[in-house]
Amino acid sequence: MKLGTVRLDDTQRVVVALDSDELAVPLQAGLTVEGLIRNWPVIKPEIEQTVAALTDQAVPTSSLDWLPPVPRPGKVICVALNNSANVDRIMSGPDKPATFNKPATSLLGHGQPVRLKKAYGRVHPEPELAVVIGKGGADIDRADAMDHVFGYTIINDLTSPTMRGQDTFHYRAIHPRKDGSEGVEYVDTWTTYPGRYKGSDGFGPIGPWIVTADAIADPHALTVSCVHQGRLVTQDSTANLLHKVADVISYMSEYQTLEPGDIIAMGTALKPSASGGSAVQNVNLTELGGPIEVTISGIGTLSNPVEVR
Amino acid sequence: MKLGTVRLDDTQRVVVALDSDELAVPLQAGLTVEGLIRNWPVIKPEIEQTVAALTDQAVPTSSLDWLPPVPRPGKVICVALNNSANVDRIMSGPDKPATFNKPATSLLGHGQPVRLKKAYGRVHPEPELAVVIGKGGADIDRADAMDHVFGYTIINDLTSPTMRGQDTFHYRAIHPRKDGSEGVEYVDTWTTYPGRYKGSDGFGPIGPWIVTADAIADPHALTVSCVHQGRLVTQDSTANLLHKVADVISYMSEYQTLEPGDIIAMGTALKPSASGGSAVQNVNLTELGGPIEVTISGIGTLSNPVEVR
Repeated sequence: MKLGTVRLDDTQRVVVALDSDELAVPLQAGLTVEGLIRNWPVIKPEIEQTVAALTDQAVPTSSLDWLPPVPRPGKVICVALNNSANVDRIMSGPDKPATFNKPATSLLGHGQPVRLKKAYGRVHPEPELAVVIGKGGADIDRADAMDHVFGYTIINDLTSPTMRGQDTFHYRAIHPRKDGSEGVEYVDTWTTYPGRYKGSDGFGPIGPWIVTADAIADPHALTVSCVHQGRLVTQDSTANLLHKVADVISYMSEYQTLEPGDIIAMGTALKPSASGGSAVQNVNLTELGGPIEVTISGIGTLSNPVEVR
Repeated sequence: MKLGTVRLDDTQRVVVALDSDELAVPLQAGLTVEGLIRNWPVIKPEIEQTVAALTDQAVPTSSLDWLPPVPRPGKVICVALNNSANVDRIMSGPDKPATFNKPATSLLGHGQPVRLKKAYGRVHPEPELAVVIGKGGADIDRADAMDHVFGYTIINDLTSPTMRGQDTFHYRAIHPRKDGSEGVEYVDTWTTYPGRYKGSDGFGPIGPWIVTADAIADPHALTVSCVHQGRLVTQDSTANLLHKVADVISYMSEYQTLEPGDIIAMGTALKPSASGGSAVQNVNLTELGGPIEVTISGIGTLSNPVEVR
């Protein structure tokens, strides 16, 4: 099943796609995707019946005013540098998933304009598979991890390398003395803070659809492509994700309790397209504008115009 | 006025402190601090009347089961390295506030145990003034910024330098070619991801009280102290914050739209106490346990036991 969230007559509504994706049935006002997720085993058969009964009330999806499929997730966990193509560029780094959190205010629905300011500097797309958590939990065993997946969606993890550079400190961090005596010593350190470069408004286009887990046979056999102004920038496979969905769910749940509706962005598909030596980093949206599009096989296409002011 | 959120008979309730802080009046079930914030100008006189009428139903605050004062803020923005004592340690860094976001699941009420795992490595306290946003907005003028403050609370921005070190990559970042030609070049870069070292469960003790803005004459004249197992670790003043409350609100609202109930942690008070050369970094909670306590003049005391497993 494919679920989305839209604004219809000024009201937030859940929509369910019919077979073609081109038509969708709006469910009754008051329902939310997060509410459905929390009650899914009970409510799923009801929703299937409702959709079958209301097929004649379906609306064309091309006309819809999309919100993020989970409009206000409790948290968005993003995995960094999680593609095998990164490996030969890493001089040192963890062998476990390293993550940051994007605020819900950075999320944007399909078709909504990404509004960039000149002051943001360079901004490039990062096309990613996103996991939507169903059943929450902490310290989840790897063997049980996939039971916690409600479904999958698409996220464009927009990134400003300009702001990343600006928000990096080279400083002497305070550490306790190595010899165990009272007092401190100083250690030469670089630290980067992602608030602006990953979390600014509009830096998280997401959607349009959540495809429920039962409809995706293998989340590591999906093609991810990114198209800018009609030109293919990246075409990659989720097979190249270094840390798999089950690894990330199990590992991160040791640190951050997962809740229904939480989003995990799995890391960027970044293999340059066969058509040239271009990369997502070449696509400076602040200079070039949009539209910017991410397609994942079996999930759909997320497309957003870009406005620069 | 001082507002808090507690669990009373399995129900979430807002409490309002009487003059002494030792007694508080629970408001009717169903009200939330976030709801009060959104309707404050209208609802404030009603609340004052209710509290005056219900003084005989006040409960001792020492017996309360505290939640974070805003239990599920839309986002928590934390300002890094924002104390004038940092300046002589910074070799390079931004002259504007650099931030990261903590997930709501990392927050913990006053009195609740911080549960640490040995795998977290070193974990130290960071005592901070936190701003609670009242009126939301984007691109807020510095001159209007203080009108967006609902009140102030206390946050202990727990930090693991062990996980910070582990989640730092030294890698060759992909950049577009400097000469503007198609293709990419590589730039030697350090990047740190704060998901675990700042965002793990329990890494955000907060509260107990939100003191409304009208009761704090000057947020930059408050004494912040941190006490570990009865021993003073830090005593500092919010006068030493490099970027002031109005600066941070105005600047960050250019990037992340602020919403009612959002929390901004202003940065660590870290001047070592006069009693010795100790620092917050010497207090390894994973090894030493708690309690860990933060007091801010005019706001209150946030105290948490520590459990290590």
